[in-house]
Amino acid sequence: MAFNSFGKILKLTTYGESHGSAIGGVIDGFPAGVSVDFVAIQDELNRRRPGQSNIVTQRKEPDTVEFLSGIFEGVTTGTSIGFIIKNTNQKSHDYSHNTNVYRPSHADYTYDKKFGIRDYRGGGRSSARETANWVVAGALAKQLISTISINAYTSSVGNIEMDKAYDQLDFSKTESNTVRCPDEKMAALMIDKIKEIRKQGDTIGGTISCVAKNIPVGLGEPIFNKLHAALGNAMLSLNAVKGFEFGSGFEGTKMMGSKHNDIFNKDGSTQTNLSGGIQGGISNGMDIYFRVAFKPVATIMQNQNTINSKGEKTEIMGKGRHDPCVVPRAVPVIEALTALVLADFWLLNKTRKI
Amino acid sequence: MAFNSFGKILKLTTYGESHGSAIGGVIDGFPAGVSVDFVAIQDELNRRRPGQSNIVTQRKEPDTVEFLSGIFEGVTTGTSIGFIIKNTNQKSHDYSHNTNVYRPSHADYTYDKKFGIRDYRGGGRSSARETANWVVAGALAKQLISTISINAYTSSVGNIEMDKAYDQLDFSKTESNTVRCPDEKMAALMIDKIKEIRKQGDTIGGTISCVAKNIPVGLGEPIFNKLHAALGNAMLSLNAVKGFEFGSGFEGTKMMGSKHNDIFNKDGSTQTNLSGGIQGGISNGMDIYFRVAFKPVATIMQNQNTINSKGEKTEIMGKGRHDPCVVPRAVPVIEALTALVLADFWLLNKTRKI
Amino acid sequence: MAFNSFGKILKLTTYGESHGSAIGGVIDGFPAGVSVDFVAIQDELNRRRPGQSNIVTQRKEPDTVEFLSGIFEGVTTGTSIGFIIKNTNQKSHDYSHNTNVYRPSHADYTYDKKFGIRDYRGGGRSSARETANWVVAGALAKQLISTISINAYTSSVGNIEMDKAYDQLDFSKTESNTVRCPDEKMAALMIDKIKEIRKQGDTIGGTISCVAKNIPVGLGEPIFNKLHAALGNAMLSLNAVKGFEFGSGFEGTKMMGSKHNDIFNKDGSTQTNLSGGIQGGISNGMDIYFRVAFKPVATIMQNQNTINSKGEKTEIMGKGRHDPCVVPRAVPVIEALTALVLADFWLLNKTRKI
Amino acid sequence: MAFNSFGKILKLTTYGESHGSAIGGVIDGFPAGVSVDFVAIQDELNRRRPGQSNIVTQRKEPDTVEFLSGIFEGVTTGTSIGFIIKNTNQKSHDYSHNTNVYRPSHADYTYDKKFGIRDYRGGGRSSARETANWVVAGALAKQLISTISINAYTSSVGNIEMDKAYDQLDFSKTESNTVRCPDEKMAALMIDKIKEIRKQGDTIGGTISCVAKNIPVGLGEPIFNKLHAALGNAMLSLNAVKGFEFGSGFEGTKMMGSKHNDIFNKDGSTQTNLSGGIQGGISNGMDIYFRVAFKPVATIMQNQNTINSKGEKTEIMGKGRHDPCVVPRAVPVIEALTALVLADFWLLNKTRKI
Repeated sequence: MAFNSFGKILKLTTYGESHGSAIGGVIDGFPAGVSVDFVAIQDELNRRRPGQSNIVTQRKEPDTVEFLSGIFEGVTTGTSIGFIIKNTNQKSHDYSHNTNVYRPSHADYTYDKKFGIRDYRGGGRSSARETANWVVAGALAKQLISTISINAYTSSVGNIEMDKAYDQLDFSKTESNTVRCPDEKMAALMIDKIKEIRKQGDTIGGTISCVAKNIPVGLGEPIFNKLHAALGNAMLSLNAVKGFEFGSGFEGTKMMGSKHNDIFNKDGSTQTNLSGGIQGGISNGMDIYFRVAFKPVATIMQNQNTINSKGEKTEIMGKGRHDPCVVPRAVPVIEALTALVLADFWLLNKTRKI
Repeated sequence: MAFNSFGKILKLTTYGESHGSAIGGVIDGFPAGVSVDFVAIQDELNRRRPGQSNIVTQRKEPDTVEFLSGIFEGVTTGTSIGFIIKNTNQKSHDYSHNTNVYRPSHADYTYDKKFGIRDYRGGGRSSARETANWVVAGALAKQLISTISINAYTSSVGNIEMDKAYDQLDFSKTESNTVRCPDEKMAALMIDKIKEIRKQGDTIGGTISCVAKNIPVGLGEPIFNKLHAALGNAMLSLNAVKGFEFGSGFEGTKMMGSKHNDIFNKDGSTQTNLSGGIQGGISNGMDIYFRVAFKPVATIMQNQNTINSKGEKTEIMGKGRHDPCVVPRAVPVIEALTALVLADFWLLNKTRKI
Repeated sequence: MAFNSFGKILKLTTYGESHGSAIGGVIDGFPAGVSVDFVAIQDELNRRRPGQSNIVTQRKEPDTVEFLSGIFEGVTTGTSIGFIIKNTNQKSHDYSHNTNVYRPSHADYTYDKKFGIRDYRGGGRSSARETANWVVAGALAKQLISTISINAYTSSVGNIEMDKAYDQLDFSKTESNTVRCPDEKMAALMIDKIKEIRKQGDTIGGTISCVAKNIPVGLGEPIFNKLHAALGNAMLSLNAVKGFEFGSGFEGTKMMGSKHNDIFNKDGSTQTNLSGGIQGGISNGMDIYFRVAFKPVATIMQNQNTINSKGEKTEIMGKGRHDPCVVPRAVPVIEALTALVLADFWLLNKTRKI
Repeated sequence: MAFNSFGKILKLTTYGESHGSAIGGVIDGFPAGVSVDFVAIQDELNRRRPGQSNIVTQRKEPDTVEFLSGIFEGVTTGTSIGFIIKNTNQKSHDYSHNTNVYRPSHADYTYDKKFGIRDYRGGGRSSARETANWVVAGALAKQLISTISINAYTSSVGNIEMDKAYDQLDFSKTESNTVRCPDEKMAALMIDKIKEIRKQGDTIGGTISCVAKNIPVGLGEPIFNKLHAALGNAMLSLNAVKGFEFGSGFEGTKMMGSKHNDIFNKDGSTQTNLSGGIQGGISNGMDIYFRVAFKPVATIMQNQNTINSKGEKTEIMGKGRHDPCVVPRAVPVIEALTALVLADFWLLNKTRKI
């Protein structure tokens, strides 16, 4: 049923609340025989970590992952890989004012109505802290499909939008600035925008673009596990995401077929790639690229009218240490989810032809 | 594993190629005790059927569904519901010229590379004919969640875009024109556009918007089965879809949190609904609305350069009877998929609280 | 969720009531590139068919399978394989006396209580007619794992029990008698027993043993998909089955470890095979063998006291054409289920090691 | 795919090697609103724990479970429940002699051949230590279906077999002796047998019977999730199990239908219960009872010939602290698995009828 599981053969199952004692998960279906680079995994976690720069939340959480099983003498054994990330900096008193108040555009109200109970400390299970689990699993997945490169980057913050196509960018520069935009000029504008918004006690949305290169032909299934549907499902699982498009996306709706069709070269590659590397749900070997929309963070440092669990009017003011824009820290999460999807389909594809 | 299955508890499993003897499927997990309105199901199929107007393909396919099991004396029994739609108008000779030619931006190339074999007649399994199966299952699902209303409509054709929000529209008019746009002026413009494009032997993309009203609070799961992720996954499974957004969508990325947050009324409803009826992955009782992007149909009535299965250059010219714009006929499919997702989560939600 | 599905990667989903218009199913996950021997599939169906000898039911049902998709020019395409077996000899009036009467030790009462409705004609979904679907899918699976041989046979009827181990038997003789016992003397005794029981209007139970040879090492999973657990689950899904044991089985509980352990030869084979070819849930390359217990058929040709749906006392007398012993016709079903399980694990195993 | 997952809606996913740092798991799909009795859970773990009496292994492992999520202020929240049991008494040097030696009738050989690598310390993932995870989840499941009573007991050790039917036993006495047999005379004989076997450095098999009372009518599904098939699958997942039978089981194969049929009383209960509480795969409200066969433990304190990973002949002698008979400690595990299956079907059944 998989309320808290993701994937088909390579399956991640997670648990953990923002202010419980730990978060963690189980990675099942990871094949035996992969030498694990633990430093690379921790590096990915560090990219997602709070407190890494002055345009993200100032919370300090070390986010150290500990592997508990499934890896023996540095090599995966084919058994399930348990891991845990302890919550060390819980400061639950920061959130005590939210006990029975429903924060606007958060999950407080819906959790309460659905389950009749919720862990109100720091958002509980709805906290984006969960995504640290995904980054761990995704970093492992990257090591399984190491010939594929996956690069995400911030492509807009508010109305400041990247004006270059992905193939005009140098991804080696993505990590050179705090907003994770590989174009330095755009990055500077975005950072200024976020700082300005933060001063106002407000928040702003944005988009992340992601590119996967060197993809084997044949990943994805014809009907209900189309590769782009699985990618879309993954991205829409991420907190604050409101939209997903791949290849020509929403702009492609305005085109005519004669312009939109990707004409083949003799080797099966195509002259254009409006398909975004996927045709009929299956990878065609061209670059896969897609874009993900993030709404502005719901927690703002301003007074807002709201209600409490008794239906009484009250006011709320965001406290604590929140992100003015979620996008920069979501970049490694997008990459992790992409790796999980691609690795899963890569394994699955081994079974599809004799 | 579900290569050809959709849903968690309410699960649809399908089969069928465009030019095989039949398509069909099995609906599993449908609860016992629902009186089936067979006419309503056939009516939905008729909405999707080719040949219904002069702006869609002129193929004539009766698309009559026959139920084989799971319904006894007009009432569902809780056992699996088998159904079949026979292919009566196959005209496979129309497609014989495509035997070993890869049509640009179709699934021919990827199927061949993935499986080493493909049924080239009319696109085989990649044909949108499969969506007739979905419409059958969705029409049944609608009868399970009959208090919920689901209305999709064409919101753009090419650059002709609906200028009204969904709550300014009268959905009773959607079926009053062939393009399925509830605004008559916009509909006329869209129809003209499609006719113009068809004369050129070309095709055009567009978008469909969908609104679901009277939703119970609590549908959807916190982490990996967020309601909007399931909806996105469903929509991205539909042929030609390139993007999905819900609530404020991509436009919401440009907003500030102070403007984007939906402030609660005392009864838990919200003053605005930029959330699109879903918060933290769970329905909050407000209207759910989303938008789906369709690329232009890849089959055009013009000569195109392409390659064959030997990697040789060749030319292709679309023959047969194709849609110049897929959007009008996709409207009932979008509704069907929405009904399947909502019914599935409605059933699932019965297990989530004691 | 899989109420009506079986398997992990190779997944069979079925539908159909005994006296509906058809039964059938969808085989998903079958790899592309397998040349299908349709005659071999129909031959397996004929082995299961009613009316084939004088010790089984005299109903005449042709049980002809028709494939609807997933096979193109005789070769599997990797897409889902739909199939249908029409119900041609329904004679539903034979069963009209059972409309609201609960037959003892049948599923009438439990279906009614669970679902509030049931198709009472011939047992509806609870009829062993469903196993024809399994035989179709199993026959296809056999063609996927064609190097593995699977042989089931009747090893007891009532208290007439085979006195030879499986490796003393010549399986080429199994089909030479109507009870499907490869030992001619035992077969004669079993046939006499069944005839005697039938004359009394009574029924009798029995066991089937099954042996699979030439198994690759490594099928099965360490924890929750142990190969023998999957086999047991499959066998216990078959109508009238009350028990399953493999290798030394229940007799092995009386042994000491020093006698029960299978000592290795240098090539990894073992000197004895009390493990039944499976260690730690994973095949070790030795013969897999197991035994399945069948209760006597519940429908007898005698008066029995029972109740109706109103809780009133009434009498029932079996009519129609029933099997006095289900075991002979279950032999091909056991083989089919075994093939499905082994093929599924064979596919799955392709993903477990890099 | 569920290599390490169990259940449909209520799903347990586990990890952990015998001598890793911890074992643990995630319980998903547990409904919100259940007050958790932590002492009862730990009590169940203590029943399974090594070192609890002089007829089981003398290893001392505290087996303390720590819950990490999904429970807030003592009540389940509907989110996934993570838990961990740290391995405190690893003594891995005890096992160092087994590094590359294949123990007869263990999983060493098959793991190595399947995965190309294995954690050889104490059996790694194949260790019955895993069952501590199941006991935790099962103890929680018991609290969900608290009106159902589940009682397992040792019904044979070697050829010492219980001579009373379950309804002649007083289950309150099961825990009064170390072999967990509710009949004191039989218990004494069994204990003597185990002590005698242990003195010989040998091991012995046995059986466990299990009875579940006060079952709601309607648990289980018609075709591929029959209640008894799910129970059989669960039991066959337990280390050393070689067989499963329910109701009349293998003995029932010798009976005639006229004797085997359970005649109804007016209230739907039956005069006999050879069906074992399940008809057509669905619970009928009568007691569910079944029996599970365990082979003798493979690790014996005697010299045995075997091979190493190079295919060379060598000798092995069991060291460490092993159970001479696994049956007494498996009793709480059988109960836990039964609770998990029943709770899962109880949840599932909420979706099967409108």
